[in-house]
Amino acid sequence: MSRFFSEKRKNLIPYTPGEQPKDIKYIKLNTNESPFAPSDKAIEYASEASKSLNLYPDPECKILTEKCAKMLGVDYDEVLMTNGSDEILNFAFMAYCDKDHPAYFPDITYGFYSVFANINNVPYKEIPLNKDFTINVNDYIGINKTIFIANPNAPTGIALCKDEIEKILTSNPDNIVVIDEAYVDFGSESCVPLIKKYDNLLVTQTFSKSRSMAGARLGFGVANKKIIQDLNTIKYSTNPYNINKMTMAAGIGVLEDESYTQKNIKTIIETREFTKNELKKLGFDFPDSAANFIFAKHNKISGEKIYLSLKEKGILVRHFNKEEIKDFNRITIGTKEEMETLISTLKLILEE
Amino acid sequence: MSRFFSEKRKNLIPYTPGEQPKDIKYIKLNTNESPFAPSDKAIEYASEASKSLNLYPDPECKILTEKCAKMLGVDYDEVLMTNGSDEILNFAFMAYCDKDHPAYFPDITYGFYSVFANINNVPYKEIPLNKDFTINVNDYIGINKTIFIANPNAPTGIALCKDEIEKILTSNPDNIVVIDEAYVDFGSESCVPLIKKYDNLLVTQTFSKSRSMAGARLGFGVANKKIIQDLNTIKYSTNPYNINKMTMAAGIGVLEDESYTQKNIKTIIETREFTKNELKKLGFDFPDSAANFIFAKHNKISGEKIYLSLKEKGILVRHFNKEEIKDFNRITIGTKEEMETLISTLKLILEE
Repeated sequence: MSRFFSEKRKNLIPYTPGEQPKDIKYIKLNTNESPFAPSDKAIEYASEASKSLNLYPDPECKILTEKCAKMLGVDYDEVLMTNGSDEILNFAFMAYCDKDHPAYFPDITYGFYSVFANINNVPYKEIPLNKDFTINVNDYIGINKTIFIANPNAPTGIALCKDEIEKILTSNPDNIVVIDEAYVDFGSESCVPLIKKYDNLLVTQTFSKSRSMAGARLGFGVANKKIIQDLNTIKYSTNPYNINKMTMAAGIGVLEDESYTQKNIKTIIETREFTKNELKKLGFDFPDSAANFIFAKHNKISGEKIYLSLKEKGILVRHFNKEEIKDFNRITIGTKEEMETLISTLKLILEE
Repeated sequence: MSRFFSEKRKNLIPYTPGEQPKDIKYIKLNTNESPFAPSDKAIEYASEASKSLNLYPDPECKILTEKCAKMLGVDYDEVLMTNGSDEILNFAFMAYCDKDHPAYFPDITYGFYSVFANINNVPYKEIPLNKDFTINVNDYIGINKTIFIANPNAPTGIALCKDEIEKILTSNPDNIVVIDEAYVDFGSESCVPLIKKYDNLLVTQTFSKSRSMAGARLGFGVANKKIIQDLNTIKYSTNPYNINKMTMAAGIGVLEDESYTQKNIKTIIETREFTKNELKKLGFDFPDSAANFIFAKHNKISGEKIYLSLKEKGILVRHFNKEEIKDFNRITIGTKEEMETLISTLKLILEE
């Protein structure tokens, strides 16, 4: 730290991305990436866009926003495209949280919420999950705070149903409720249709997971158009050209190739169910995941031991040091072959 | 604006990017883009990178940072790559400005400084330029504030020499001085070598102008490694994957093709000098530009009239409504052919 660093920043604890070791080639099941290549159309359009990089991208991101709105069944002015869904989440903290509107979210959830709260000097409260890692909806009823809920939640993979979220929305009519749907495509109910009914709802999604575009940094928010106006004010006050030309083009490409996305989602769900069965046979317990990962704990061996043994054998999974979840590992669903290798490797580890 | 927008955001006045009208194909001389295509290597590497978009980019941006540090003649840990130079500027406001460290910058300069100050709730003061649009260095001597100076300045194109900046650095030893060198490659002295001597200096640059990569969003900061540590703390608290895979690859490509960059810079400087001569003959006045644009005023016709007449005839230049500079237009240096068309079009307008 330099001697110039602002007092208000000195205690920041930044987010830690999943490790990316380069020593050997790992089977990467640690950052919830898609095991499938991006759509050919995404590759083709991005490559074409790279030829005119000397010109700025369209700051309004018009064509991509139109296509995304159409895919979602909402209006153009109800969508804001962002630099990953991290950017729209940060915008939400900037726009809707302050000393009078603290942020409330589960204590076990996406680790970036507390980081965003800190960087924006926003007070926050982490609400404990139930013992089985489910969210207790009653904890969020009529609390009059700005609420952030990942649905399905990470790293647990557990989803709330739309009715439960509606209860939270109706009981906090004067506060924004952000539903972070990064993993929604893998089998839970989206709240996007609810934006027409609730002016306090902001839904965020990403192209990183089901659309195989983690490397491109593309996400978006969906909400009432006044919310989108607010978030545009934040965007044009921080990062007007937030989507680069190639990412914009790749985003258009993948939206024109929706059947490819749907096929990959189907395969990932099937592979997840296969993996659940196999893990169960090996003595693992896990909440029922609606995401592209499984949050699993073995009935005999510690989470850290499994994480380290897998890494030694060339497989990366995500282990968190947090006390309540230190027995678990978050395992991304890769290809069927990768999951078969995972299972056979786990067998070896359990026999050791 | 929604009824939820935080009180502290309600008076934000966002940045306005240069217009991007799509009605006809314009000669675009309004956003200081390079008229030259990106390096073939940038295109090739970006296209290759698009094939593995399903995986996250390297959050450390290691290879690109190494190459950039080498190009600059500094160490790896003295450089931070960012999402355009806007991001590193915003990080500097976040890291080094607060109520006790207000931001001071010229009243006529890059329009985003005041926006960054506002979004970060930082007090700021705009210091008037001299009548001839030069910066009065004495205004910045020993003021003990966080200082932002674009060098060369925009939209004037006027550069300070390194000695003058050293006076500012030595007289404000307990405050960060940010030198924004977006346009430095077109003929002014870079302060990058001074980072070894002054621990309070942060130099920012961009790949948008001389490296033909405005569409990719790539910039960087250069400073003492403790400053870079601070800025990394901010990065990992807002946007850990700030450089997407394709931009990272394109950046590596263009740095491996430095002769192409240098050739383009030489051509732009020659074309600028040609354009200056021609504009002078037509009765234009302008400060001596060290950038890839000319800030010009006609001795008879208003800036707005010229802007509108040029637009009507298919040429976009940038006109600012601010009182002190409303007689001027900022004209980007395009290709020789584009500037010849500009000159002949201006002749027509002056004859009307």
